[in-house]
Amino acid sequence: MNTSLKERLEAAYAAQQSRTYFAAWPESPRAYAEDGMAQGLLAFQSLLTQNFTELLQEGSQGWVGDEVSPYMMTGLGVQYPKFAPEVLIANAKSAQKVWSKTSADIRAAVLLDALDRVALRFFEIAYATMHTTGQSFMMSFQASGPHANDRALEVLSMAYHELNRFPSDVTWVKNMGKFDLTLQKNYKAIPKGVALVIGCSTFPTWNTVPGLFGSLMTGNASIVKPHPKSVLPIAIVVAEIQKALVAAGLPASVVQLGVDTLDHPITKELAENTAVKLIDYTGGSAFGDYIESLQGKTVFTEKAGVNSVILDSVADASAVFGNLAFAASLYSGQMCTAPQNIFVSAEGVNTAEGILSYDDVVAGIANAVKGLAENPKMGAGTLGAIQNDITSTRVKSVEAAAGSSVALASMNIVNPEFPDARTASPTVIAVDAADMKSWKHECFGPIVFVVKTESAAHSLALTSDSAAELGAITCSCYSTDNDFMVEVEDAMNEVFTPVSFNFTGAAFVNQHAAFSDFHVTGGNPSGNASFTDSQYVNRRFVWVGNRKMA
Amino acid sequence: MNTSLKERLEAAYAAQQSRTYFAAWPESPRAYAEDGMAQGLLAFQSLLTQNFTELLQEGSQGWVGDEVSPYMMTGLGVQYPKFAPEVLIANAKSAQKVWSKTSADIRAAVLLDALDRVALRFFEIAYATMHTTGQSFMMSFQASGPHANDRALEVLSMAYHELNRFPSDVTWVKNMGKFDLTLQKNYKAIPKGVALVIGCSTFPTWNTVPGLFGSLMTGNASIVKPHPKSVLPIAIVVAEIQKALVAAGLPASVVQLGVDTLDHPITKELAENTAVKLIDYTGGSAFGDYIESLQGKTVFTEKAGVNSVILDSVADASAVFGNLAFAASLYSGQMCTAPQNIFVSAEGVNTAEGILSYDDVVAGIANAVKGLAENPKMGAGTLGAIQNDITSTRVKSVEAAAGSSVALASMNIVNPEFPDARTASPTVIAVDAADMKSWKHECFGPIVFVVKTESAAHSLALTSDSAAELGAITCSCYSTDNDFMVEVEDAMNEVFTPVSFNFTGAAFVNQHAAFSDFHVTGGNPSGNASFTDSQYVNRRFVWVGNRKMA
Repeated sequence: MNTSLKERLEAAYAAQQSRTYFAAWPESPRAYAEDGMAQGLLAFQSLLTQNFTELLQEGSQGWVGDEVSPYMMTGLGVQYPKFAPEVLIANAKSAQKVWSKTSADIRAAVLLDALDRVALRFFEIAYATMHTTGQSFMMSFQASGPHANDRALEVLSMAYHELNRFPSDVTWVKNMGKFDLTLQKNYKAIPKGVALVIGCSTFPTWNTVPGLFGSLMTGNASIVKPHPKSVLPIAIVVAEIQKALVAAGLPASVVQLGVDTLDHPITKELAENTAVKLIDYTGGSAFGDYIESLQGKTVFTEKAGVNSVILDSVADASAVFGNLAFAASLYSGQMCTAPQNIFVSAEGVNTAEGILSYDDVVAGIANAVKGLAENPKMGAGTLGAIQNDITSTRVKSVEAAAGSSVALASMNIVNPEFPDARTASPTVIAVDAADMKSWKHECFGPIVFVVKTESAAHSLALTSDSAAELGAITCSCYSTDNDFMVEVEDAMNEVFTPVSFNFTGAAFVNQHAAFSDFHVTGGNPSGNASFTDSQYVNRRFVWVGNRKMA
Repeated sequence: MNTSLKERLEAAYAAQQSRTYFAAWPESPRAYAEDGMAQGLLAFQSLLTQNFTELLQEGSQGWVGDEVSPYMMTGLGVQYPKFAPEVLIANAKSAQKVWSKTSADIRAAVLLDALDRVALRFFEIAYATMHTTGQSFMMSFQASGPHANDRALEVLSMAYHELNRFPSDVTWVKNMGKFDLTLQKNYKAIPKGVALVIGCSTFPTWNTVPGLFGSLMTGNASIVKPHPKSVLPIAIVVAEIQKALVAAGLPASVVQLGVDTLDHPITKELAENTAVKLIDYTGGSAFGDYIESLQGKTVFTEKAGVNSVILDSVADASAVFGNLAFAASLYSGQMCTAPQNIFVSAEGVNTAEGILSYDDVVAGIANAVKGLAENPKMGAGTLGAIQNDITSTRVKSVEAAAGSSVALASMNIVNPEFPDARTASPTVIAVDAADMKSWKHECFGPIVFVVKTESAAHSLALTSDSAAELGAITCSCYSTDNDFMVEVEDAMNEVFTPVSFNFTGAAFVNQHAAFSDFHVTGGNPSGNASFTDSQYVNRRFVWVGNRKMA
């Protein structure tokens, strides 16, 4: 491996160990080619209503594709080569023979090359993400571009470090008194086998590349099974990895894309195949539980959670309401990190200007959400569009069930650029803590409950129970009471949930920074794995040591 | 933590990373007190027919104990305090509150102190091991004494390193163009919960302390459930850990011993308790599979395997036969690392003096086993005694089924020191590869099959299949053909089995050295964990990061 590649890996590894700020790819589109946006749009448009012909894997039979733009509400018309699961498996097994024997240095070089190739298509991937997930352009660019690449690099550098943790060869000498017993030993990191990476509809690259690069770097040929409604962004990424493989003289089928449709899913057939030893999954909990129940597989999941906010006491209430409104509105609450339940004591919230009653708080949050949604410079861009009809329908049915407790109804926010976009601003619902059937389950999408509790301690108890039972990826706490903050951190950490305290301004609970923030802890029902602890890579291979008489 | 403790942990960690020879406790009894053996025997004898009163945990109801010396064939008469599973769990949950908040430095200091206390009782533990497992005195001393302590230290130092992998606090600064976003972040290693460590009858401390020290070091209060026939050695270890805890002002119940009997086992009740989050298990595969199937637990298993020898070509046949005879005879084949099936081609074995036929090889192995068993200076001391009647019965029934294929019948080797000892030297049985119902399953104990194959390649194929299907902890290969050795290493490593090549002299396939050899890979059915890769400690806790607005 050449020095500059090694330095890049080492810099990334050093950053994730120190957990200080690091980004290998700038998050601002302005840091890239000046005509990047225009060229990216053209490139994206040229893919529409066409067969996607960039994939280098072989054995397809026909074409398949079923994506719809949440902004245009029309089909993208992109068709992908269709592969029978057994063809994907056979290709992977054959590629695995070569890839498992490829050195870690070469694997790392190929995968870094792939990330560099992907970076040249960030704008195109951004448009592809926008028109499959409904994210705004800016979020699409950042999440599917630099942030996803950073997460991939984070895993890559962690895996590279762990693969080199033990020496490949040693001479072991034990003095036996009158003589030395000398053995030659070697240590090999043996890949577990074929890997399957199952993507989700909302973050098709960000949630896919960590597992994918983890399995690939540790020597496992991988099959990406994207969500049938969010294929194009990851199709481009897979195509670029294949090009990097071929450029290095390696089989393209080390990574493959297996596209299916909602009507004819192939995920279970792939997952249950005995050759598949590793599965990464992002998505709903029911299917995630099924994936976790499969015997003889090593499984990494990110499932649903219910994220809570404990609103105890604040310095500046309007700054807090604004921050919460943004956190709940960003991509219309379709982030796995978005807050759903805001717990507020019936005793009210202490502020610098006196106590705000529970009703004042509900009104404050509702007004902040409304103000953001209706702000012509902010609303449409923050909310993006709703990825699918199920989410839109859920908002309506939750509101209908809530009846008069709806403090702010969800609104259709017209996006001047895309008048047909499927949009919905967050609904804000005021409920009593006792009304658990309302708030104590996941309501994915732009739905916020402001839950009235008996006290701050009660808020914490409910938040902790909810995380333990339903899982939680984030938890937010606003308090000026240091003792209470310590209590919250202890109680929530005990149910393996991280806490973000007093976020205002540019800090949002939704954002988990690569190299610094663990994403999902793996300790509660929201998932069994974490981006990126060392297990995330170590569970993908097995150390085997051999000994030889010297 | 004081400097010398830190240096000890660092030296141990450095050794296991470099995988060179290291031992923190000398394996020779001569390195310890001159009167150690005599004092140890007295101490052991003083425990017999008494209540074991050293445990500091509370809430016992009555006494229980059912151990029998395989050397004397009489009960030890040691009675242990009896605890209801719910009492053990309640004690553990209460201790967990304190232990989980105890710093890694203090945990490490307490556990190192415990190991030092244990070392003062090595001789006593050796006699306790001898008279529960049937191991010879020397093996008892080494395996339950210095080797077990070394394995515990190996895990301790790995865990200490991993717990300190990420900083406890950082200031994270992200430049946002016109301003800096600054967050204070912390990272905490949160223990998973109460741990259960289930011991086996043959290696009551060696196989228990790695999981126990792994769980304890990572902050999990632990319950040791020893095999009811092998309690005393680990009871002494648990008592010493409790003393170290109390000396540090910590609750004794951070570790507890839960003794049961074969008639009234408590293992399932403990294992299924929802408070139990971690389980370490050593023993048979059926119960191990049950343990692995439990939902919501993190499980580490060492189960049964079938270890093979591929005998292709050798320089010095008699050296090889001698080495194999010793490997099969050591503790009468009751080591999880002992060879069971020796694969020899019908084409014979190439030696420096020409080809040995399959029959010559069978005779050579049988003679070497017989010579060792009947050697008055070696036989009884190498074989030790048979831990339980089931093993003795198995030897007889396997021989009966084998009929005329028995090349060497198992013998009762009289031990002059213990004339009533239950002994059995290895039976050597010649079978055809096609006779899979004979050899292709685990026959625990002093049973060796010399399996006639079509070729060396056939031997390898059978060895590889067997490891993949039945599991294997070791594999031995004798060959002078370098290409074949590469093939064997590749094929066996692919089924996650380590290979030892051409062991003669003082090198035996049974011996796995702490800090250098991984024990069990975790990749085949012989177990899902490895002493000691980093997962062995990392899976016992969860990283949680918290963020605060600066």
